[in-house]
Amino acid sequence: MTAEEFRRAGHDLIDWIAQYLEECEKYPVLSRVAPGEVRRSVEAPLPQHGEAWSAMWRDFDRHIMPGITHWQSPNFYAYFPANSSYPAILGELLSAGLGVNGMLWSCSPAMTELEMFVLDWLVDLLALPAHFKGAGVIQDTASSASLCALLAAREQALEWRGNAIGLASAGARLTLYTSDQAHSSIEKAAMIAGLGRENLRLVKSDDAGAIIPAHLAQLMNADRAAGCTPCFVSATMGTTSSLAMDPLRPIGEIAAAERVWLHVDGAMAGTALACPEFRDIADGLELADSFCVNPHKWMLTNFDLDAFYVREPQRLVRTLSILPEYLRAAQSDEVINYRDWHIPLGRRFRALKLWFVIRSYGVEGIRAHIRSHAHLASQFARWVQADSRFELAAPPRLNLVCFRLRAGDEASEALLRRLNESGAIHLTHTRLQGRYALRLCIGSPRTRESHVSAAWSLIQRIADVVLGR
Amino acid sequence: MTAEEFRRAGHDLIDWIAQYLEECEKYPVLSRVAPGEVRRSVEAPLPQHGEAWSAMWRDFDRHIMPGITHWQSPNFYAYFPANSSYPAILGELLSAGLGVNGMLWSCSPAMTELEMFVLDWLVDLLALPAHFKGAGVIQDTASSASLCALLAAREQALEWRGNAIGLASAGARLTLYTSDQAHSSIEKAAMIAGLGRENLRLVKSDDAGAIIPAHLAQLMNADRAAGCTPCFVSATMGTTSSLAMDPLRPIGEIAAAERVWLHVDGAMAGTALACPEFRDIADGLELADSFCVNPHKWMLTNFDLDAFYVREPQRLVRTLSILPEYLRAAQSDEVINYRDWHIPLGRRFRALKLWFVIRSYGVEGIRAHIRSHAHLASQFARWVQADSRFELAAPPRLNLVCFRLRAGDEASEALLRRLNESGAIHLTHTRLQGRYALRLCIGSPRTRESHVSAAWSLIQRIADVVLGR
Repeated sequence: MTAEEFRRAGHDLIDWIAQYLEECEKYPVLSRVAPGEVRRSVEAPLPQHGEAWSAMWRDFDRHIMPGITHWQSPNFYAYFPANSSYPAILGELLSAGLGVNGMLWSCSPAMTELEMFVLDWLVDLLALPAHFKGAGVIQDTASSASLCALLAAREQALEWRGNAIGLASAGARLTLYTSDQAHSSIEKAAMIAGLGRENLRLVKSDDAGAIIPAHLAQLMNADRAAGCTPCFVSATMGTTSSLAMDPLRPIGEIAAAERVWLHVDGAMAGTALACPEFRDIADGLELADSFCVNPHKWMLTNFDLDAFYVREPQRLVRTLSILPEYLRAAQSDEVINYRDWHIPLGRRFRALKLWFVIRSYGVEGIRAHIRSHAHLASQFARWVQADSRFELAAPPRLNLVCFRLRAGDEASEALLRRLNESGAIHLTHTRLQGRYALRLCIGSPRTRESHVSAAWSLIQRIADVVLGR
Repeated sequence: MTAEEFRRAGHDLIDWIAQYLEECEKYPVLSRVAPGEVRRSVEAPLPQHGEAWSAMWRDFDRHIMPGITHWQSPNFYAYFPANSSYPAILGELLSAGLGVNGMLWSCSPAMTELEMFVLDWLVDLLALPAHFKGAGVIQDTASSASLCALLAAREQALEWRGNAIGLASAGARLTLYTSDQAHSSIEKAAMIAGLGRENLRLVKSDDAGAIIPAHLAQLMNADRAAGCTPCFVSATMGTTSSLAMDPLRPIGEIAAAERVWLHVDGAMAGTALACPEFRDIADGLELADSFCVNPHKWMLTNFDLDAFYVREPQRLVRTLSILPEYLRAAQSDEVINYRDWHIPLGRRFRALKLWFVIRSYGVEGIRAHIRSHAHLASQFARWVQADSRFELAAPPRLNLVCFRLRAGDEASEALLRRLNESGAIHLTHTRLQGRYALRLCIGSPRTRESHVSAAWSLIQRIADVVLGR
């Protein structure tokens, strides 16, 4: 592809993206292809010679597009949002064009320094504890950030002997704690870090899904009595199932007294801290040793960009640092080399897109984005409460409403299936205290009141069918 | 930013990228900013209100560009290449525009199915063992891929009890093996997985930097005799320092006899397998349990894209799988959910860029790219050999030449420092058998004979200065 062909194709693609994002509500939200259908349609022999962009584009349009589930649709209410925005897309494009790898400061000083700067901005934007300034790093996902936090906690508890001699020889049985509502990534991290899922204690949650601190203390005491060493607590600022908020202050006080690492996972809900009226959920966050939030969920910054903060980065660096000769650079002592702050060695220039997003929207623009979703969600919750066939399955929080049919799990399951088959909207489900619940999570910058009210009308109509009326 | 503003900014950015890539040799390759300089120049209060793209772009141009080290320059010979290409950039842009997250098949069936398809194409392109078909997954980096391989090996050796009860209770002391020339990511993986760096045995290498298989067998025997359980060998297809090639067949035979997982790291050199004349380095690869190669290094596909293959993916899935209610999807049994194949949960649509690259270049285009670099490297090696002040520090391989001044380490270090200060080219160094060596690694699609010969002339001129002639 020549530079001139790239210009033409690139202009066309920019125009296509703008049109796609403006019109993406016209597609069925959940892809309707059957398993194997896309694979069969793209199947072709390995090309011996180069093809023109037009051939690739035709195949993308014909064969890939039908297999896309439209996360950017204003009618996408599933899982959690995957925000993108025009300035974020430009940031990602610019990063791809520069093609730099920032494993070391010298590999592109601007990449390391802009990242530190923009993560400090985020501390201000979200009113995070001041000790997180100068202590942030971009990770791909909250799963990876939580794993890094757990590794540092593991090594702190073992005085860095785990890294040296291994857990089998280090002679301590470490235990870790999170809510029975917490994200599966904590269990996965416990497995990866070699601690074992049986040493992960699931702290009981209350009716709202929040950790019961007294139960956390009981579990730790019992573990200490049994000869175990508690090393890590992960509190959730907004669970995936229901946006339940763990009480950070009492959890933090227990963790501090027990000298246990407190990690706070604010993957989606952390973005709400941009608005002063939602900052009650961060009460006690200053007790956390680490915190992560995903601007790629709700802050208009396309995937991937998780912001991870550590109270004392040296503990993280000591956990993950390796220094072979071929990576020694002249400035090693004066500067940060982010390679020691996460699992991969290489890293791309992701700070650009967050810099563009914050500047393009400004604090007030980001607040307006969050507030509009919170407003729409509370309106939807009122509609649910006003229809006697439905009930809320958890207290509505921020941009998430969990609800169900009173007629029982099977009716609710049937409702969800038919909603998703309609193509008009896409929701997912969870279980809360053993019972099935539909989740409506609002996150697209294009979701307006008209979309949410149309979604509610559709839900009511399909409920009529499911309930046989 | 409105759709119309995005179109205008996007067109300008596409044009800028084309111009940047066509002209990037005009910049000093290694950024000349001092530590803290970029940070000071971008420092600004958090913006309350949105700014125009023109303001961001001006700041990018003024403050970020001087802090960029130009990995795409034809005069970049440091570390390893970070290939980008026009079709790859378009693929990354399209992925950002679609903004889909493919953790589950249903989250966008096309993303999972195109990924499987294009990784099967790569099996054909690189003539990889046929059992890697249908067994590939895109990871961010080889570091992450190697970690996943080690985790599966760990669990296989522990019969999946590590995940369940933790390494401290599982009661086996696991050992792992790699060359004393292998990449630092293996040591990092040993730490993360809880095995400990002291249980990582560094197998001696021969003069060319390749593992001595007899020493591997000795180490394993000694470990077994001491009550340890060997679980994992990582062989390197092209070390970072000198592109040394571990002999895969004897290593694989030892691993098979010992029932130890064999991982092969072909991060950069694996791309050379596109050319039949370089496939001798893959002799024995069919004995590997897993293999990784980074198209983001030498195959024109911008960072990040590591292709990771596992002989029996079920072993990987069993190692990394978690299944909370909110991720249960209707099709779970019929399809692959890539979330269980790596550490992060979320994932972006990276297969698009590799699909576009392979189709845009074709097999012959990719071969021509590799061959031109191998040709230039061997030419450079001949020039080094013809100048009596210099010597080769290792046998030249593919696109890498390691060389030094005969005058000793200090002279070679001074040579490197002055070369990098010149801004004309960027090289990095390593140590081979204790002695300092400069590395010239050719990987840019824009590097022509004229660039390499200019680099050699500069090296000779600066050698004159360093040697006081």
